[in-house]
Amino acid sequence: MTCRPLPLVTLIASSLVSLSAVAATPANDPAALVNIRDAAMRSDYAYERLADLTDLIGPRLSGSPGAAAAVTQVADAMRKLGAKVTLQPVKVPHWVRGAESAELVGYAGKPAGVSQKVVLTALGGSGATPAAGITAEVLVLHGFDELKARAAEVKGRIVLFDVPFDQDMADHGLAGPAYGQSVAYRVAGPRMAAEMGAVGALVRAVGGAAYRIPHAGSSGLQDNARIPAAAVTIEDALLMTRLAKRGPIRMHLTLTPQSLPDADSFNVIADLPGTEKPDEVVIISGHLDSWDLATGANDDGTGVTSAMAVIDILKKLDYRPRRTIRVIAWMNEENGTRGARAYLATQGAHAEKHVAAFESDNGSGRPFGIRASVGTQAVKYFAPLRAALQPIGAGAFSREDALGTGDLSGLELAGVPSFEPLMDSSTYFNYHHTPADTLDKVDPDNLRRHVAVMSTTAWFLANTDEPIGRANVVVK
Amino acid sequence: MTCRPLPLVTLIASSLVSLSAVAATPANDPAALVNIRDAAMRSDYAYERLADLTDLIGPRLSGSPGAAAAVTQVADAMRKLGAKVTLQPVKVPHWVRGAESAELVGYAGKPAGVSQKVVLTALGGSGATPAAGITAEVLVLHGFDELKARAAEVKGRIVLFDVPFDQDMADHGLAGPAYGQSVAYRVAGPRMAAEMGAVGALVRAVGGAAYRIPHAGSSGLQDNARIPAAAVTIEDALLMTRLAKRGPIRMHLTLTPQSLPDADSFNVIADLPGTEKPDEVVIISGHLDSWDLATGANDDGTGVTSAMAVIDILKKLDYRPRRTIRVIAWMNEENGTRGARAYLATQGAHAEKHVAAFESDNGSGRPFGIRASVGTQAVKYFAPLRAALQPIGAGAFSREDALGTGDLSGLELAGVPSFEPLMDSSTYFNYHHTPADTLDKVDPDNLRRHVAVMSTTAWFLANTDEPIGRANVVVK
Repeated sequence: MTCRPLPLVTLIASSLVSLSAVAATPANDPAALVNIRDAAMRSDYAYERLADLTDLIGPRLSGSPGAAAAVTQVADAMRKLGAKVTLQPVKVPHWVRGAESAELVGYAGKPAGVSQKVVLTALGGSGATPAAGITAEVLVLHGFDELKARAAEVKGRIVLFDVPFDQDMADHGLAGPAYGQSVAYRVAGPRMAAEMGAVGALVRAVGGAAYRIPHAGSSGLQDNARIPAAAVTIEDALLMTRLAKRGPIRMHLTLTPQSLPDADSFNVIADLPGTEKPDEVVIISGHLDSWDLATGANDDGTGVTSAMAVIDILKKLDYRPRRTIRVIAWMNEENGTRGARAYLATQGAHAEKHVAAFESDNGSGRPFGIRASVGTQAVKYFAPLRAALQPIGAGAFSREDALGTGDLSGLELAGVPSFEPLMDSSTYFNYHHTPADTLDKVDPDNLRRHVAVMSTTAWFLANTDEPIGRANVVVK
Repeated sequence: MTCRPLPLVTLIASSLVSLSAVAATPANDPAALVNIRDAAMRSDYAYERLADLTDLIGPRLSGSPGAAAAVTQVADAMRKLGAKVTLQPVKVPHWVRGAESAELVGYAGKPAGVSQKVVLTALGGSGATPAAGITAEVLVLHGFDELKARAAEVKGRIVLFDVPFDQDMADHGLAGPAYGQSVAYRVAGPRMAAEMGAVGALVRAVGGAAYRIPHAGSSGLQDNARIPAAAVTIEDALLMTRLAKRGPIRMHLTLTPQSLPDADSFNVIADLPGTEKPDEVVIISGHLDSWDLATGANDDGTGVTSAMAVIDILKKLDYRPRRTIRVIAWMNEENGTRGARAYLATQGAHAEKHVAAFESDNGSGRPFGIRASVGTQAVKYFAPLRAALQPIGAGAFSREDALGTGDLSGLELAGVPSFEPLMDSSTYFNYHHTPADTLDKVDPDNLRRHVAVMSTTAWFLANTDEPIGRANVVVK
């Protein structure tokens, strides 16, 4: 999961929706939904594919050998199920991590001969220091207001944004907004610091658990101002905040990542063709790339393998959808969404043929329902789907004007309703983008529940008499 | 905190104890104990010293510049309080961490071009690989029984002991025993593997939290067989266990630590001399050295600075003990207990002058009382101390035949009763010996409670009419 500012959208709901179409929407066989749900709750297909993806391949950063191997592995698995597989070419950013280390070499009260090591990891798109590193004073800030107030001190310094992740919000069902308000410092802070003359930028890891692990992610830096930028652990941010109260801090910082020319990669697209309306499409998806510190089990192995399992379930039941169910393993969600852009470039003109698009990219917590950017008048037509999911505690439905999620926001702006699971994300940001996002963090039972939500939803959307209506979002 | 097998001890309780002495033991002024407790609960002296120790110096592995700086810092602080400070020379092991990395370069199902990174850290006393590393097959084992059963497979391989820490025990007040049963694989496993011809030894991190951080610690290896030995994270141990089910695993392992000649260091000994019986001594202590991955806030900055605070409290109250209260910051508890041995070598002959010895080395959880290796008949004399601690929830008292704790076991075997806080240690092994053992893990209020327990106990023991009796442990 990445976070970009949501496009400013609004819903023009009723006026553009074909009411006749909506009125005709029902017609899913409740028994089929129950059968699909139960098959999902008995299946370990997704977990097995997740183990293949994470144990055999590991990290899958765009442009890496792991990402290439993942394309092959997922395409092979989908072909094995009898899906019609297409590899859509995508040019992706190719950023490669280098050496990374930092120590505090000067601060008030420092005894001779010692220095404090700072644990950090370069942010995606970070610029590089010389191989021998740089040494500069650290300016510790706690928000953008303070950056503005202390603008005169930025030049020549390494700026640290020590802004905590609000775990209390995450514990109360607001993990996404908590992430959004913290990650702003990662996606905008380095660029702002660079523009003001900083020689480096550090952000506090965006997450709720303090185990001295950094959280990777995109820096938001562009080619014209790639200063060295890194995430420091919560502990090291706190240390620098405390030391700054004693006096000036000097850091020796070494980061030697490289921004290489764009690399060739692919979206993996696997179709289960519709029997009646093969040109109408329901996308069910996750993203195949991951950050490079871990095996991306939660971000987003869960999403990809749950989507793959939709085809497995339907094939095992020999259920053939009326519309085409299209599984997509998106490439490059994390640092460019080039996969989504490539798809939009080729399919955007056919957006009206896309009935809906589902992406799961919020980890593997227990799902309790569905979020969707459908029109208000369409909500009632989901009753059969919700009834089928209610017995596994996943009958909730949250209608939004727009989800604005990673790979689907372009389609959504073109009118395609977006879907994602509603789930418990309270611990997601303990692991997200960290070295600890590994298979052991995924509960197999929760994963079955994800597959149940995704497979029933895919089937439901592919089998309504008429499409459930356009999202009708427009940019303000 | 380290863990060595407890000496087999038994208590010869009543026969050797001077009953007349015990009978005369009471005579502490309850009001003084309450005043000390309350002063401790108002004081941030320990937290401030802990911040100095961990923020300004950081890691303090024996022989390191940090350890040397810590000796100076603590001695200076104690002199500033007016204590009589002695630096007792100690020759300590000098082991220095080098490069450390590992990756799985062969396993069934591995795509070309990828390898799985394994996060690990060399164990203290580990031998070194060549700078270019070694490559060998990994033999994944889950216990000593399996080591024995698969003895023929050990030669030429890297042995991994994947044995989990029992967090459930830790959650139920048995963190110490849970640690003991897991750490056996760290302190004995590498040696056993070396003797059977292994070319490397790995142990699963001994701890309850899975955030892909390794737990350092001593390997138990001796000069005659220092094979490369490391702790791998919980996640990486699980990965190898899963991959081993698919087929053989090959690892490329690089560890380049060095075992240097013994270094000069010191125990810091700070006396608050007794007014009536200055030659009778109550030791109150923690250990000054730490592992090198973090700043050792819990292990054992808490113990050292709580002990230091005892003198601060008594000085501020202008309370002068009848016997000498001796604060000791032990050197080298973690990988040699050379400090304790040096003290025993010079003071062992005067063990009968040591009324009691207290060491806090189980972190900074909330204390709820005291453990002590006193005779059964002595327990009742602690009533005034327990009454003073009861209002802060620390009135429990657990008598044991022997504590066998790090720096005090030698004195205990010589008859000196050992004391330590009873505390909530359920989360201690989440951080113990990891990069995450940092100041932010210490709750200032809990630390005040530790100081309250230690300062009242020190005062109580230093002011009884007669010593509370010998521990009278003998080796079976």
